[in-house]
Amino acid sequence: MGKAHAIAYHAMPAVFAPPVRVIRALLAETSDELARQRARELGFERSIGDWRALVADPAVDVVDICSPNHLHKEMALAAIAAGKHVYCEKPLTLSPADSLEVTEAAEKASVKTLVGFNYMRNPAAKLIKEIIDGGEIGRVLHFRGTHNEDYLANPELPFSWRLQRRYSGAGSLGDLCHIINMAQFLVGNIVEVCGDLQTVIKQRPIPEQPGQTGTVENDDQAHCLVRFASGAIGTLETSRVAAGRKMGLAFEINGSRGSVVFDQERMSEIHLYSTSDPSNRQGFRTVLLGPEHPDYRAFCPAAGHGLGYNDMKIVEVRDLVLGIAQDLPLWPDFRAGYQVDRVIAAVERSHEEGRWVRIEEL
Amino acid sequence: MGKAHAIAYHAMPAVFAPPVRVIRALLAETSDELARQRARELGFERSIGDWRALVADPAVDVVDICSPNHLHKEMALAAIAAGKHVYCEKPLTLSPADSLEVTEAAEKASVKTLVGFNYMRNPAAKLIKEIIDGGEIGRVLHFRGTHNEDYLANPELPFSWRLQRRYSGAGSLGDLCHIINMAQFLVGNIVEVCGDLQTVIKQRPIPEQPGQTGTVENDDQAHCLVRFASGAIGTLETSRVAAGRKMGLAFEINGSRGSVVFDQERMSEIHLYSTSDPSNRQGFRTVLLGPEHPDYRAFCPAAGHGLGYNDMKIVEVRDLVLGIAQDLPLWPDFRAGYQVDRVIAAVERSHEEGRWVRIEEL
Amino acid sequence: MGKAHAIAYHAMPAVFAPPVRVIRALLAETSDELARQRARELGFERSIGDWRALVADPAVDVVDICSPNHLHKEMALAAIAAGKHVYCEKPLTLSPADSLEVTEAAEKASVKTLVGFNYMRNPAAKLIKEIIDGGEIGRVLHFRGTHNEDYLANPELPFSWRLQRRYSGAGSLGDLCHIINMAQFLVGNIVEVCGDLQTVIKQRPIPEQPGQTGTVENDDQAHCLVRFASGAIGTLETSRVAAGRKMGLAFEINGSRGSVVFDQERMSEIHLYSTSDPSNRQGFRTVLLGPEHPDYRAFCPAAGHGLGYNDMKIVEVRDLVLGIAQDLPLWPDFRAGYQVDRVIAAVERSHEEGRWVRIEEL
Amino acid sequence: MGKAHAIAYHAMPAVFAPPVRVIRALLAETSDELARQRARELGFERSIGDWRALVADPAVDVVDICSPNHLHKEMALAAIAAGKHVYCEKPLTLSPADSLEVTEAAEKASVKTLVGFNYMRNPAAKLIKEIIDGGEIGRVLHFRGTHNEDYLANPELPFSWRLQRRYSGAGSLGDLCHIINMAQFLVGNIVEVCGDLQTVIKQRPIPEQPGQTGTVENDDQAHCLVRFASGAIGTLETSRVAAGRKMGLAFEINGSRGSVVFDQERMSEIHLYSTSDPSNRQGFRTVLLGPEHPDYRAFCPAAGHGLGYNDMKIVEVRDLVLGIAQDLPLWPDFRAGYQVDRVIAAVERSHEEGRWVRIEEL
Repeated sequence: MGKAHAIAYHAMPAVFAPPVRVIRALLAETSDELARQRARELGFERSIGDWRALVADPAVDVVDICSPNHLHKEMALAAIAAGKHVYCEKPLTLSPADSLEVTEAAEKASVKTLVGFNYMRNPAAKLIKEIIDGGEIGRVLHFRGTHNEDYLANPELPFSWRLQRRYSGAGSLGDLCHIINMAQFLVGNIVEVCGDLQTVIKQRPIPEQPGQTGTVENDDQAHCLVRFASGAIGTLETSRVAAGRKMGLAFEINGSRGSVVFDQERMSEIHLYSTSDPSNRQGFRTVLLGPEHPDYRAFCPAAGHGLGYNDMKIVEVRDLVLGIAQDLPLWPDFRAGYQVDRVIAAVERSHEEGRWVRIEEL
Repeated sequence: MGKAHAIAYHAMPAVFAPPVRVIRALLAETSDELARQRARELGFERSIGDWRALVADPAVDVVDICSPNHLHKEMALAAIAAGKHVYCEKPLTLSPADSLEVTEAAEKASVKTLVGFNYMRNPAAKLIKEIIDGGEIGRVLHFRGTHNEDYLANPELPFSWRLQRRYSGAGSLGDLCHIINMAQFLVGNIVEVCGDLQTVIKQRPIPEQPGQTGTVENDDQAHCLVRFASGAIGTLETSRVAAGRKMGLAFEINGSRGSVVFDQERMSEIHLYSTSDPSNRQGFRTVLLGPEHPDYRAFCPAAGHGLGYNDMKIVEVRDLVLGIAQDLPLWPDFRAGYQVDRVIAAVERSHEEGRWVRIEEL
Repeated sequence: MGKAHAIAYHAMPAVFAPPVRVIRALLAETSDELARQRARELGFERSIGDWRALVADPAVDVVDICSPNHLHKEMALAAIAAGKHVYCEKPLTLSPADSLEVTEAAEKASVKTLVGFNYMRNPAAKLIKEIIDGGEIGRVLHFRGTHNEDYLANPELPFSWRLQRRYSGAGSLGDLCHIINMAQFLVGNIVEVCGDLQTVIKQRPIPEQPGQTGTVENDDQAHCLVRFASGAIGTLETSRVAAGRKMGLAFEINGSRGSVVFDQERMSEIHLYSTSDPSNRQGFRTVLLGPEHPDYRAFCPAAGHGLGYNDMKIVEVRDLVLGIAQDLPLWPDFRAGYQVDRVIAAVERSHEEGRWVRIEEL
Repeated sequence: MGKAHAIAYHAMPAVFAPPVRVIRALLAETSDELARQRARELGFERSIGDWRALVADPAVDVVDICSPNHLHKEMALAAIAAGKHVYCEKPLTLSPADSLEVTEAAEKASVKTLVGFNYMRNPAAKLIKEIIDGGEIGRVLHFRGTHNEDYLANPELPFSWRLQRRYSGAGSLGDLCHIINMAQFLVGNIVEVCGDLQTVIKQRPIPEQPGQTGTVENDDQAHCLVRFASGAIGTLETSRVAAGRKMGLAFEINGSRGSVVFDQERMSEIHLYSTSDPSNRQGFRTVLLGPEHPDYRAFCPAAGHGLGYNDMKIVEVRDLVLGIAQDLPLWPDFRAGYQVDRVIAAVERSHEEGRWVRIEEL
């Protein structure tokens, strides 16, 4: 993920020609040596083996956190305390309480924050938001969203920190919580959930201890019913054992006058159905992204040429930089990240207690 | 639906050349006149304006019930009482209690029964069952199924018997319960559900009374989490207001060694992912139905030529006829129809009481 | 193919409720015994081992020819001489000269004729014709069509009559000439072609003579550039060795204001692009066939439920029967079949002589 | 296009961490002022209003030519004369003779050359080459390729240099000649063609002269039959008026043991059919690009996350830089660009003279 950020810092100025200059000032790693190597590879000016020194460095305006999940909180609080703006990968922290703590600290310190939910930076996602907000599909009735991958489908894959609650929090539900953010981005606040979680592969081999296995502590697959503040209903689903799904952030939204379908595996197209087309010519329309859609033109002046994964990070970095330089609102900020974490926690509690849980309980 | 049955009776002998002859002996309608007209159109030998006379007719071996849902029970009981085999459209009745009653009556009378869940007759569905049962995708982990259509998406569509509980029972959940049967066919018994239902368009115009509206009594959209006896989990979804979906019986099944995807709107193909393909050549494979797959060869000797909606009814009628003639087990029989009705009722109760409901409660 | 016709005769009355009654009066096969068996299977009243007797039978109004290609001419001439209407499978004969002969005989005798180009009976094809004729995609600029299959891709498949010019005429080009008829149906007359043909597998094993092979005399794959009378240009392609293509009759038509894409392997949908959609919402629209499209409603009252291969034959038989009963024009009649045969012959001559060939040369 | 190159120079080091450092030393434009502005936007160290000065500059090792087509020759010759390596956008020049001249000059001067056929840099294209070269689909029998777009479909679009032969050479055939390069890359040398070209919109408005139109001098759509040295045959097609096609570089390759299908509009997936799959499980497999495929891992460690248009240019720049730094062969070099230009010219001559043309004639 650090590399994806670095690519974005490199390419963003050439894509967007922003009115400010981004300096890759300082890179911290777990040792001086590793930091030096990464800084060289990723084009940073200086490097250091101690993240606290980075946070304290006067040349640093923005702290970018790409560490394992359980370190986000401490790093973010330190950065905020040093008066830095903070750009943090998702999930924000391991619990709503922690996320609220960093959110309130940031708000009090009046620093800018951004959580790396990069899939909503895809021009396709913004186009869909434009379609919904413009009333093109009428009132949203139903949202069915998944973020399914298969990176842990193979039971031979080793035990790791991602499978332990104290380092990673929730399993697929936390790791693939992009779909929660996407639902909130497009349909608004979720107010109530009822969920079910499952650890499919309960033991995994410990590489350092042949013959030993570690107990997987979080979910391999999770799903829930959701109710939105708007009255819409929906389902969300995450899996890290869904054979064949590589980047299965996909959703269908049915509205009172149309529908939208999207699949991140074909990230440069959306499918739009409108009941205002003539009745005998209605159908899902495959709209390829092009220069008439949000942010696309900066990448390519011609339609249908396709954006890639790293391009979303370029948009994200542009938004971060302009948000800070021009004091614009950023979203999803830490408070929005906290809202995602509340949904994660609510789904987990719902599963434990076998009942619907309101988000405000968390 | 009566017409679809008639087409099937006509075409089936030419397709399957069965060792028995099917006689379209007698057609009943609500009046002698209407019955006469329909019998002429649909190629029946005789007609009658009273269904009770049909049930009693000694020339009739099998009673085929295509009436509105609320009449199924009475007609089925009468047919069973007369010792006839019964072929009934879905849903079997309006409640699990009624469905159990007709089921027990049929079992006691030792008549054959079949419920018209025609989508599982699609060779594609049987191929998928063969794939699952043969272990090709390993242990089933997750089933996500929908049966979404948009036949009531337009709020100007009139109030009708389908929208009233006493005539139709559940709304989209009952009408599109094919997806429940499909889940049971492919993954086995459902043991527990947690559901949510919604009536999106609460009032609809009454055609006979300009300016008046009728109150819709059943769901426009419904969805639920399900737990299977096998340990698999899943979601089911039905909608009659899902703009753009015409025959959206679609599902994805993730197993421990592969996945299967199907969409009835492209009914002559399945998508199969197998983790036993070489890792750098894995992908969802679009398998077009052909003569090597169940029942296809009777329709066409060459692959990829495509089956249609009516062809599934032809398979269904073939199964009915052979089942009776050769005393073979039929599925889904009334007991299987009762299992579908229990799931419907469990989802409704779950919604009312805001909790998980075990199927055995109903 | 005989079976497909029989299914159509059986099912058509129930689908279309035509005002005339079709009698499956007499079936001829190569022996009395075989004819008897087939008549029983396919539901014909009588049978006979001599096709000349069928042609002469006074109870027969229409002769339906499903024999191997090289017999079409003789049978058609005999039927015409007996004053019968003739329904013949494609290709009409093995040469333009023969096709012209039977065409002129039929026209002189004033009998109705129809050639079995069933793919243009697909409601999808008629919908596309409606779209083109209505000017929805403007002036047609380009047609790219294929009819690719893989039924002879395996080099182990045996030598047969299909591979010999005297029995079968052209190879893939003749067998899959549906795409020529489709181009003519949708874009109009072809006036000039330049083609290339190839026999990929030159020898095939003779089953009766182990170790011996027969020399394949006709094309495994063929393609050509075409010029239409309208000024449009295009390419046509046929193959019987195109691995993976089962029913690959597919085409794209670009017009001055839109485009249409179709693939018979997904026979119940078309893809329509219109430049009159808003520029930032343009895209190919997947229109599922439904009751608002030609002929669909007779099969099913709800959209998206899907038609199958045999359903096209049902439409064809309906057109045949009504055309005869009500003295309506039939298309493609023998003259239209002759036009297809001229294109086939022109492509072959173009290949032999290495030059563009005008259709009127043949 | 200059911007796409600049993005690639910026991002490449972060993606590939090459062992050499790329300096964006000098940017030339048509005036000092414009050059200064572009250099600032695109991150170049220096700028200049005279391209000859750039070519002569001792700090410059590689000259990158993104000018209009008719200037390529002069610039390339000057750069070669100055001993610089040359990276030139396609088409190389406006005629085979000119392309041969620059090719021979470069070969004599022993400078490295590369032509910007970026679509073959797509990991998908390299994966397909790997599949073909590894014999996975057997011997290639047929190639059907298109590069269709609709950027000039609207007849109101103005007259420009692209429509005049002296500035642009061929029309769609020259502009979209990527498909020729792709065919050569995947299937090898083309030895003979027979083509047809058409200017669909013959006059276009001249913006500076209201009411006046300019005569379009080159093709709006073109297609040809081709014969490869290997014995395979195929068709190629280009169009700039194909409504709905935005980046329609698409092809299907049929081999003796399988087929491959690709569409640049879905640039991160290929479709592979193999006859070695079990016969009842064969189908086109959608393989999503991932880290096991060529070059992908440098962009993203997880499969299916998608590459974009600019990513191909990053690969191209990596190949350029490593090719020069490590003295590796580069392809397509100027000689390969010359081969593309010969095919273009052969198709044009074939059209003019109405006959097959051998490439060696040009």
